[in-house]
Amino acid sequence: MAQNNSFKLGILGGGQLGRMFIQSAINYDLRIHILDPDADAPCKPYAHEFSVGKLTDYETVLKFGEGLDLMTIEIENVNTEALEVLVKKGVKVFPQPSIIKLIQDKRTQKQFYKANQIPTVEYYLLENKKEIFDYQHFLPAVQKMGKEGYDGRGVQILRTAKDFEKGFDVPSVLEKMVEIEKEISVIVAKNEQGEISYFPPVEVVYHPEKNLVDYLLSPAQIPQEIEQKAIKIALEVIQKLGMIGILAVEMFWSKQGEVLVNEIAPRPHNSGHQTIEANYTSQYEQHLRSIMNYPLGNTQTRCLSAMINLLGEEGYQGNAKYVGLDRLLSMKGVYLHLYGKKITKPFRKMGHITVLGESMEDLTEKIEVIKKSIKVISE
Amino acid sequence: MAQNNSFKLGILGGGQLGRMFIQSAINYDLRIHILDPDADAPCKPYAHEFSVGKLTDYETVLKFGEGLDLMTIEIENVNTEALEVLVKKGVKVFPQPSIIKLIQDKRTQKQFYKANQIPTVEYYLLENKKEIFDYQHFLPAVQKMGKEGYDGRGVQILRTAKDFEKGFDVPSVLEKMVEIEKEISVIVAKNEQGEISYFPPVEVVYHPEKNLVDYLLSPAQIPQEIEQKAIKIALEVIQKLGMIGILAVEMFWSKQGEVLVNEIAPRPHNSGHQTIEANYTSQYEQHLRSIMNYPLGNTQTRCLSAMINLLGEEGYQGNAKYVGLDRLLSMKGVYLHLYGKKITKPFRKMGHITVLGESMEDLTEKIEVIKKSIKVISE
Repeated sequence: MAQNNSFKLGILGGGQLGRMFIQSAINYDLRIHILDPDADAPCKPYAHEFSVGKLTDYETVLKFGEGLDLMTIEIENVNTEALEVLVKKGVKVFPQPSIIKLIQDKRTQKQFYKANQIPTVEYYLLENKKEIFDYQHFLPAVQKMGKEGYDGRGVQILRTAKDFEKGFDVPSVLEKMVEIEKEISVIVAKNEQGEISYFPPVEVVYHPEKNLVDYLLSPAQIPQEIEQKAIKIALEVIQKLGMIGILAVEMFWSKQGEVLVNEIAPRPHNSGHQTIEANYTSQYEQHLRSIMNYPLGNTQTRCLSAMINLLGEEGYQGNAKYVGLDRLLSMKGVYLHLYGKKITKPFRKMGHITVLGESMEDLTEKIEVIKKSIKVISE
Repeated sequence: MAQNNSFKLGILGGGQLGRMFIQSAINYDLRIHILDPDADAPCKPYAHEFSVGKLTDYETVLKFGEGLDLMTIEIENVNTEALEVLVKKGVKVFPQPSIIKLIQDKRTQKQFYKANQIPTVEYYLLENKKEIFDYQHFLPAVQKMGKEGYDGRGVQILRTAKDFEKGFDVPSVLEKMVEIEKEISVIVAKNEQGEISYFPPVEVVYHPEKNLVDYLLSPAQIPQEIEQKAIKIALEVIQKLGMIGILAVEMFWSKQGEVLVNEIAPRPHNSGHQTIEANYTSQYEQHLRSIMNYPLGNTQTRCLSAMINLLGEEGYQGNAKYVGLDRLLSMKGVYLHLYGKKITKPFRKMGHITVLGESMEDLTEKIEVIKKSIKVISE
């Protein structure tokens, strides 16, 4: 594919994923257009054209997309009807609008897994709150809203029949609670030529006492058999979807030894940030290559690594200020990524830190120091 | 040092070096202001504020710098008087204006080396063309204009007395022609705390037949003794200059076994592009760390690498178009960097390619394929 610098690529969403995508896309000299509802979105300073508008609004998305050569997303919650119309008008849209639509609803996601024999957590589809009361035999379970739940919102655990009262009164999925050995993620990609690739699995490491995500570890420390299962499943998902672009497949390795799909995201993902420094090709570059129909890059890891989300400190809200950078930056193989969000709030994702390690000991030692050094507070 | 996202960093010059600097600075959430005479400069789409103006004009630079927290350069040919005034007004300027001024003139550079016992090529200072005729005994020699020569301009070889007629009639340096074993470059950095670092030496590899630069090789394949000499000299230069920022020290390893400083550049440099993928810290990040007074990063190489400049193809002038990307991108460990220049001209630097290699054989094989694949032509 020949290329010139008038190629216009539009992205729905202007958050940190879009920002890191642009950092990578600068090397390819594309014109990047961004649509985001926030006039101060992280992508704003780095887009050729930045428009403020609602991603779920038909007219807004349609108007934004007209005249673009290619469109993609960095968040799933977008108006897919407008994208369908744009495809008919000759704009390439990857991931394809029908796939974004399927993934937007956790209920259609589940039906897709079932129809394609993709192992997933056992479930029932519920239309409303009333129906939950029939599922006492299925407890403990997790109820997930079909639409618009993300980043932990719209998800709750139902342990006993007492919890039914707080059930969501919207169409939802009720999933059997799984006893989890480890949570893993595999990022796969496909281009129009049908070339396909996967990144080595990544593992979510929980804090032993706090029951909170501590860091992500790459590559996942799992038996080869589980690794192979996870990769096979992730590749099957993107193949069966027929999707073009990058797809994160989050899975559970259960205590029973199964590998089960939890959720999927058709875009760069939190579990792939460390690829910027720790793999030969980053997930952002791979996404660009896949949607531009370029040959896919080498996904191998260059070394052991971890990724720590940098969250807004509890008790602070306002203009963000970063403290403790000196200690952080004096460490070897440690990389800071700030997302350029003006306002910090407790637990808001303000950036991330990638750590390269020579061994697990080296890595975990560094992580302990990092957690004590940098903080995001307000001025 | 605490940091917030209202920190304003200005850069004089908006070319590819500034562009790659911004790619790195995005991670630190700084507000970047750029001044460049070209309204279509490579940095334009990625600057928070972009001003068009002459870098050598006193009023323009003064006005640009007012209100900034910190200023730096990506080209030496700037108005240092305005920078001196800005320093007095409280703007930090790194590299320091007096050092930029010293480096702008190849004659004062030479006097600096002499005064500080830094080994350099033997030379005479000439005031005008007439004086050249006294130096027949010194031939063959290289005449370099004191000021405003760059990228090979303002430099010529005088082999015999016949060549004196074409001598530059401006203040210049006449250097003895050196028999060169290899050309090497060492990039060093220093921050305000006095912390100092060096990148492993890089080697300029010439095409065996064409007498043109073929690629840059990192680390340089040179005897340890020469490597140590080169590093020692480069560190001495930045120490004796007392410079804050990044400094590229280009040296000759002569057939007589000497290591001699050729020229220095107080900014990111062509010989450091490969550090983006091939070293733990890139030269751009190191420059940022040094001028921000952050701890310096780890400069070690992660692997063997080469950097190939991507030049505008002969016979083409106009809107740039890149062909042969597919073949290039299907190779492992190959990274494309386009600079976003709208217009291509024969031999214009339009981008570069970094290649990671497992061995010299692997590297040189890849380089041969790359040279046959990508081309910059016009539409």
